[in-house]
Amino acid sequence: MQNFDYRNPTHIVFGQNRLGELDNLVPDDAKVLVLYGGGSVKRFGTLDRVLAGLGNRTVLEFGGIEPNPKFETLMKAVDLARKEQVDFLLAVGGGSVMDGTKFIAAAVPFQGDEASLLSHGFAPLPIAEALPLATVATLPATGSEMNMGAVVSYQGGKFPVMSPLLFPQFSVLDPTLTYSLPTVQVANGVVDAFVHVLEQYVTYPTGAMVQDRTAEGILKSLIEVGPVTLAEPENYEARANLMWSATCALNGFIGAGVPHDWATHMIGHELTALFGVDHAQSLAIVLPSLWQHRKDKKHAKLLQYAERVWDITEGTEAERIDAAIGKTRDFFESLGVKTRLSDYGIQQDQIEEVVKALEAHGMVALSETGDLTPAISRQILEDAYA
Amino acid sequence: MQNFDYRNPTHIVFGQNRLGELDNLVPDDAKVLVLYGGGSVKRFGTLDRVLAGLGNRTVLEFGGIEPNPKFETLMKAVDLARKEQVDFLLAVGGGSVMDGTKFIAAAVPFQGDEASLLSHGFAPLPIAEALPLATVATLPATGSEMNMGAVVSYQGGKFPVMSPLLFPQFSVLDPTLTYSLPTVQVANGVVDAFVHVLEQYVTYPTGAMVQDRTAEGILKSLIEVGPVTLAEPENYEARANLMWSATCALNGFIGAGVPHDWATHMIGHELTALFGVDHAQSLAIVLPSLWQHRKDKKHAKLLQYAERVWDITEGTEAERIDAAIGKTRDFFESLGVKTRLSDYGIQQDQIEEVVKALEAHGMVALSETGDLTPAISRQILEDAYA
Repeated sequence: MQNFDYRNPTHIVFGQNRLGELDNLVPDDAKVLVLYGGGSVKRFGTLDRVLAGLGNRTVLEFGGIEPNPKFETLMKAVDLARKEQVDFLLAVGGGSVMDGTKFIAAAVPFQGDEASLLSHGFAPLPIAEALPLATVATLPATGSEMNMGAVVSYQGGKFPVMSPLLFPQFSVLDPTLTYSLPTVQVANGVVDAFVHVLEQYVTYPTGAMVQDRTAEGILKSLIEVGPVTLAEPENYEARANLMWSATCALNGFIGAGVPHDWATHMIGHELTALFGVDHAQSLAIVLPSLWQHRKDKKHAKLLQYAERVWDITEGTEAERIDAAIGKTRDFFESLGVKTRLSDYGIQQDQIEEVVKALEAHGMVALSETGDLTPAISRQILEDAYA
Repeated sequence: MQNFDYRNPTHIVFGQNRLGELDNLVPDDAKVLVLYGGGSVKRFGTLDRVLAGLGNRTVLEFGGIEPNPKFETLMKAVDLARKEQVDFLLAVGGGSVMDGTKFIAAAVPFQGDEASLLSHGFAPLPIAEALPLATVATLPATGSEMNMGAVVSYQGGKFPVMSPLLFPQFSVLDPTLTYSLPTVQVANGVVDAFVHVLEQYVTYPTGAMVQDRTAEGILKSLIEVGPVTLAEPENYEARANLMWSATCALNGFIGAGVPHDWATHMIGHELTALFGVDHAQSLAIVLPSLWQHRKDKKHAKLLQYAERVWDITEGTEAERIDAAIGKTRDFFESLGVKTRLSDYGIQQDQIEEVVKALEAHGMVALSETGDLTPAISRQILEDAYA
């Protein structure tokens, strides 16, 4: 096991009928800015219930945070929060709203060029304070509700934003709030959570038994619950397990003391930025092809994954690994998430644009071993074409 | 899955050579009281390394916190902390030192009868403040390094002390600090952690997939690592996995959204208080016998435990459950932890004293279903005799 630091102070408020507790969770004297995305939280009544939960506090609203939230949009909320001297941010929505709110929390008290906050990669932001924030999560997928990270879109790229000051103070996770989600978003959420686990698990072994077993447990839970929750959106147990699985997939616990990959995410981010494919779709495209190219680096963990997650014990090691990669691709496809570039109308000659974007963004030494070059990314994308 | 709240803000500092970081972890201007138990942390040099890590801060010491720490001993530290106006507590030791330090942290600013802090059971203490505390954990067992609970001995009983103010600010977990532990303490630690998991896992099903899979993962890790770490005390990977397993066994994560039992602990506490058997020994005595008496209540989870943890899939359901109980008892015995009252020189006619103590301490409606009466405790102990 590698040395590690683990700290996650977010208070999780999980279950049915918890929105009424907002009144106890938000400081009494807070001036609250409630942030959301499109109209769905209004349409399905979630926003009204949130506002009711906030009682007599002064509450402002900022809607319209788009998927893959843009710096320019978020800066409008920063201006509003500064002008109105808001002192608490409450995100109501999915990963994009939560991520956008984290950026806003960092930017409001920041004195300097806010765009510079996007230039620190996975290193903690050089900030001494941030507005306190909390979330009401309505989409199980990104884990943003219980971590200190965000991703913001700016000038054609997607940039991480990390700081321990950006852990939500609390996150309300009510599985019933996800009942009304469109099928495609739920399927995307399953894939997103699944790949979050894989990026921390399918690397090389460090003998971290509890982390590995927990990662495998989340994967098995998602495999079990994915098809059920798509078929039965109001099956509470299925939706609750999807929601908690997605949170645990990226709250730091399974990633403690083990190497991380994230190459699938970095290549996927360029696909989203260039061609607008959904985040989870980009991961479903890249991951199986990336694994085919990185079998040597990931040999031991792919074998472990094959045996423990998919019960594949027959055949040569190479056959078992291929079977596990096939099972993974089939799982994504079975949820309706396509796994080929050509499925999304992207042309083969556009792959070069992706490689150029990776180079422009410094994504030239990816993966857990730091040796996944743009040339390898090109091969991965070529093989992911059809 | 049941509704749940989960929050655990403790910063875990895990790995080799981390004691030097104390200088960054403890506030610069803190006046620190370092607390420890017997002389082993002195003898093996841990205390010197801790003191060196604390740099130029004003540091006082309080040694002599005994196993199953006594109120009277802890009050001496409270007096010292008050007199010297200490503002940070650093526990260096195992569960007893950490638990004792938590009580001291609550008692120092408490205005009133400190013994009353032992009268709140598992409810949070009615306190508004506590001294900040941290730990350097030297014994993998109790999980106290990453939770908000403690157990204190007083007037012949053992009493829980719980408060969110008692989470350690940080805990340094360096597996190499455990190399010098006596074998019996390591074996006890494995059993203690194992039973912590079981008390939250072998109850009744609530469909909490990730919690169940994680619990099973910790159990499998302990089964794998227990014999190895006893045979090879300086096998880093084994000791590291034992240490992190023990922490994760009782940090709240696997207990979120599921029912808890704790009857084995409550009955075991009386055995320790009356006859001085080690805490883990008391658990090893009670658990197998308790399960025999509670098969009907725990039927589904005992079957799941049999299949997923011990790979028992042959035979009738009753046979599989009996086999799993037998495997559990054998596992404890294989570590050198005896599982019968008679193994510890306790006489059969002393069982009545235990039952009376349970009644005197209000332990009359134990278990996840609240229907484990003193009469059932008596039967459990009779069957645990030999």
